[in-house]
Amino acid sequence: MRISQLSATSGVPIPTIKYYLREGLLPSGEQTSATRAEYGEAHVRRLRLIRALLEVGRLPIASIGRVLAAVDDEKLSMHRVLGTAHYAIAPAVAPHADDEDWRRARAEADRLISDLGWRIEPWAPTRNELAQAVHTLSSLGMPATGEALQPYAKAAAALVEHEIDTIPLDGPRETAVEALVVGTVVHGRVLDVLRRLAHESASARVFEIGDTEQDRSA
Amino acid sequence: MRISQLSATSGVPIPTIKYYLREGLLPSGEQTSATRAEYGEAHVRRLRLIRALLEVGRLPIASIGRVLAAVDDEKLSMHRVLGTAHYAIAPAVAPHADDEDWRRARAEADRLISDLGWRIEPWAPTRNELAQAVHTLSSLGMPATGEALQPYAKAAAALVEHEIDTIPLDGPRETAVEALVVGTVVHGRVLDVLRRLAHESASARVFEIGDTEQDRSA
Repeated sequence: MRISQLSATSGVPIPTIKYYLREGLLPSGEQTSATRAEYGEAHVRRLRLIRALLEVGRLPIASIGRVLAAVDDEKLSMHRVLGTAHYAIAPAVAPHADDEDWRRARAEADRLISDLGWRIEPWAPTRNELAQAVHTLSSLGMPATGEALQPYAKAAAALVEHEIDTIPLDGPRETAVEALVVGTVVHGRVLDVLRRLAHESASARVFEIGDTEQDRSA
Repeated sequence: MRISQLSATSGVPIPTIKYYLREGLLPSGEQTSATRAEYGEAHVRRLRLIRALLEVGRLPIASIGRVLAAVDDEKLSMHRVLGTAHYAIAPAVAPHADDEDWRRARAEADRLISDLGWRIEPWAPTRNELAQAVHTLSSLGMPATGEALQPYAKAAAALVEHEIDTIPLDGPRETAVEALVVGTVVHGRVLDVLRRLAHESASARVFEIGDTEQDRSA
């Protein structure tokens, strides 16, 4: 298809497509004449993935480039490609190696992960992200031991058993990575708001809201 | 205690305490002389709550003022006070009432909530937040029906049953609201990173990572 049709099919404006081509995020089409290039389904899939990484993952162009490079690197296993996407969408957390409390938090995070028997790379940035949350909890005087976090780990593991099956692993790598990023980010938001909704409902129950309020909130 | 001791006890600098006093976030102490005021435990609790709303809830001063006003309004039930805090930490989502897809997403969100039998105020901003996530999922061609989101609702409900007991409801309202905000926000982060960690581990299992990699990530 021509670039105009690629734009129509993908919903991505032509100037944006040209920008992605210049940035090397989108491979160039097959040159059929000096002024004309042909694009195919692979380009449509790639544009969908770029859009997902940009709009849902909210990744900067540089990080998107790294994820796409992993997708294109045939030497990388699918596990490594998905891992690259996971690490790219993880909020950057700098370790405070000089802070004793932080080192304790990181040790607690690592202990929880190994107690769960989870296979996580030692250099996974998500280890620092978990350590940061543990650090915040303990600095606020909230329970922050692995035991205290077990219910969350169990809930996460149960959800992932369900989610991992929804990622299409037999198709093109772009499709799997797109499903991973969208599923992780948007379902994360879904889970977060449902938790707060469940809280409101539990609070209504605990405080035995009268019928009038029940009717209003029914 | 004097303001200097209040600062030492709470870890909040004196100029910041004076700013909170000017903004009316912190009630003034008992004037014991023209230049001296006495502060008590209530001020320490209030400063802890302001810090939690500011640093953990990342709320603007105006929203903090609304939450504190609810805490101080004896006419408001504890349920209303907690609700005010919940709605304050919810990301603002503007309804696109003129967008047919959005109206469908909002209807789907409301249906899920009533199917779950949850007691949620009709005007709860969290309803729009859930609708927004449903809208994003369907616009990306992902399953976005109430059925598809049931696993997340079940996980959220199970966690909340556990969390609601950790909120001290017999003590001062400040303490309950602080526990609610910190618990909701930080445990939300914990759950989010644990989901991504569980994903990496599940992916390692699915793709049968070899022993060397297992050892490296052990």
